[in-house]
Amino acid sequence: MFIDDLKAVVGKVSTNETILEHHSKTLTYHPPSAPDVVVFPKTEEELVEIVHVAKKYKKPIVPYGVGTSLEGQTIPYYGGIVVDFSEMNEIVAIRPEDFTVTVQPGVTRAQLNQALKKYGLFFPVDPGANATLGGMTATNASGTNAVKYGTMRQQVRKLRVILASGEVITAGADAAKTSAGYAVKDLFVGSEGTLGLLSEITLKLYGIEEYSAVAKLVFENIADASEAAFQILASGVKVTKIELLDAETIAIVNAQSQTDLTIAPSLLIEVSGGKEEVDLQLLTLKELAENWHCDLQLETNPLARAKLWQARHDAAMSLAAMNPGKQLMFTDVCVPLSKLSAAIVHARKVADEHGIQASILGHVGDGNFHVGLAIDQQNEEELATMHTINEKIVAFALELGGTCTGEHGIGIGKKRYLHQEHVSTITIMKGIKKLLDPDNLFSPGVLFDVE
Amino acid sequence: MFIDDLKAVVGKVSTNETILEHHSKTLTYHPPSAPDVVVFPKTEEELVEIVHVAKKYKKPIVPYGVGTSLEGQTIPYYGGIVVDFSEMNEIVAIRPEDFTVTVQPGVTRAQLNQALKKYGLFFPVDPGANATLGGMTATNASGTNAVKYGTMRQQVRKLRVILASGEVITAGADAAKTSAGYAVKDLFVGSEGTLGLLSEITLKLYGIEEYSAVAKLVFENIADASEAAFQILASGVKVTKIELLDAETIAIVNAQSQTDLTIAPSLLIEVSGGKEEVDLQLLTLKELAENWHCDLQLETNPLARAKLWQARHDAAMSLAAMNPGKQLMFTDVCVPLSKLSAAIVHARKVADEHGIQASILGHVGDGNFHVGLAIDQQNEEELATMHTINEKIVAFALELGGTCTGEHGIGIGKKRYLHQEHVSTITIMKGIKKLLDPDNLFSPGVLFDVE
Repeated sequence: MFIDDLKAVVGKVSTNETILEHHSKTLTYHPPSAPDVVVFPKTEEELVEIVHVAKKYKKPIVPYGVGTSLEGQTIPYYGGIVVDFSEMNEIVAIRPEDFTVTVQPGVTRAQLNQALKKYGLFFPVDPGANATLGGMTATNASGTNAVKYGTMRQQVRKLRVILASGEVITAGADAAKTSAGYAVKDLFVGSEGTLGLLSEITLKLYGIEEYSAVAKLVFENIADASEAAFQILASGVKVTKIELLDAETIAIVNAQSQTDLTIAPSLLIEVSGGKEEVDLQLLTLKELAENWHCDLQLETNPLARAKLWQARHDAAMSLAAMNPGKQLMFTDVCVPLSKLSAAIVHARKVADEHGIQASILGHVGDGNFHVGLAIDQQNEEELATMHTINEKIVAFALELGGTCTGEHGIGIGKKRYLHQEHVSTITIMKGIKKLLDPDNLFSPGVLFDVE
Repeated sequence: MFIDDLKAVVGKVSTNETILEHHSKTLTYHPPSAPDVVVFPKTEEELVEIVHVAKKYKKPIVPYGVGTSLEGQTIPYYGGIVVDFSEMNEIVAIRPEDFTVTVQPGVTRAQLNQALKKYGLFFPVDPGANATLGGMTATNASGTNAVKYGTMRQQVRKLRVILASGEVITAGADAAKTSAGYAVKDLFVGSEGTLGLLSEITLKLYGIEEYSAVAKLVFENIADASEAAFQILASGVKVTKIELLDAETIAIVNAQSQTDLTIAPSLLIEVSGGKEEVDLQLLTLKELAENWHCDLQLETNPLARAKLWQARHDAAMSLAAMNPGKQLMFTDVCVPLSKLSAAIVHARKVADEHGIQASILGHVGDGNFHVGLAIDQQNEEELATMHTINEKIVAFALELGGTCTGEHGIGIGKKRYLHQEHVSTITIMKGIKKLLDPDNLFSPGVLFDVE
């Protein structure tokens, strides 16, 4: 029996009902599905052994960080083995002199930044949730800071990966750049668990910003707010974050996070650097705000800023808390900057037409925004409406030259859109999957279905 | 006859001896090899037809930009068809509002920046030579500005590619980021012509820096200069460029570019941004320079700065001009920042031990440096010495966690090192090659030999 084989090679193996149930679902609308077994490896050697057992019994392997993914990536729809990385959470090496760190996949973002603080360093990618670096690598996560620092793919220097054969490979280099052959490292970043199991991740680090300020800009309607975001960026203001929150989102945030933000479409903009530099950027922002006859409030107190961003980051959780018994669904399109306003206005219109409560928020510096919906998974009608809304929003984004997912990934929720968006490259993707995972062991059903 | 077939589908086809000879070589030590025919397509449709003819007759296809590659990537060692992109040099669309541009592969870096100037925009990747964007994409080029802006892979948003089947695909998106499936776009960037023919490239653009200054720091020896580079970066000075030139390089540059730089190991550092910000960075630099008892000269005059960088960029050409009848060879290792000084000192020692004249220069902000040698291609002994030197420098860089090529690519010159560096991923690379180009039509012999 394959579970006995697993027990022989991994220290912690569980078939406890509560554990299986915990790994069967996420906070999102995707229906639950339990694994046969959950393993908690501590070492790379154990990962290798897990793959050998899975291969022997042709059992699926699905990696699990903390389960904050939004497109069902961690749900084992074909049963099998869930690999929970919570016990592979060691920070292997911090190299402040090289501005790099090597971590095991189970290390969380907050854990990493806590450890880096004393070196004056930080890791910028911040998807909101306190996700694991393994999960963030797997989905090519980004979030609020991406407008300045880029996405995970730009931070990952090197990976150790266990392939379907059980072989352990190293892709990438410790050096800042390389032109040695194909971008194999970049293939694994964003592969959503479908190509192998990560065992070590080497990341680029940055010096902590010496000074930051946040400007809150409040607008009369969402069209103005999104158009303003575009104009701010076109004016060359160097932002570290530029987040749009519509009135619905702010109401939710206020209710759950004890903030008292004005309930109206708003931009939260962080600028960072030397104080003079920051002041200069703020001056430009003020001039722009005056042109728009828009209210601008400044927040330079570090604690108040932290509270504000925490409230923003908790927006998804707040939406869940406001809707007990319901599940979350977030759209995730990303469009060229100049098309942002059109895309957001369209999304609002679509949600309103379907009479569904929707909150819009986004990392608008990248042209990326989300429509958040709380729905009842069991309610066929709600589910159908939600799919229709998503479909319309994605179709419009693709028309504008955008993508169906800026940062959440495809998972099982956006497979149909991957086909639409990459009609000409999906064959290549399937070929790569077959090349690296011929038995379809890793996260079957994620990204696309294998013939 | 396949050339007649080509003439039937492409407007300009040449078998003229001078043209063939021109496309048989580069400025480097790699031995020449002439193609059977050179084609000059103007359109994507012609590219597709060329691939069909090549497929029919099983003839190799080798793309050619302006022939400035340094590892023999454009030399058709198996004859066949060289595709010269000089007539596909149209800037298809500039979208200042989105900070993007779409170009045909034959557009050169200088041509693009000239066109962008009126929008206050520029494209930062600058490998020194006035290369084509197609060639730069193919080698994942970088150069002086990469320390601030990153390499080509980070600038390329979207590609149109003609595959070996003749099918035209679009990889990537116009949006700033995407998490939709595998990084197929990134696979083509840096594939050195081995996976397909590019027909269109969409690139990220940036606002022109409002103010820049250059500091020249002169050191007593190269160990101090490279250690200082590391310390400057570790101190958090935000540099746009940080270039190291040893005494030999400066002597060559002075002789060929009418500059009068002090002949000693030097760092040329550019800082950019608002004037106050720049002044602040310069202040830190001055303090550091005083600690090291090192001479610091400032250059804020834009023309003088431009002349200085031109001289630096012309270093390779200057080395060629100083050695008529000889060919160039550049090593290209890139190591973690903290290992830079050790790697450079080691390289100098290796060159000295072999009694060979070598000039060292590099983009030290990335840990990337070159040892430039001028050798006689026909002289077996010189060739052997050069290979020994390269081998030792690469072996040491790999030991330090570095890469054999930071920006020049593998071509035909570093194939043995690709095997050393990527012992565990080369099988994946070969699998990808086979998947995308089963008949080995595109640039055979480049990167690795196909079984």
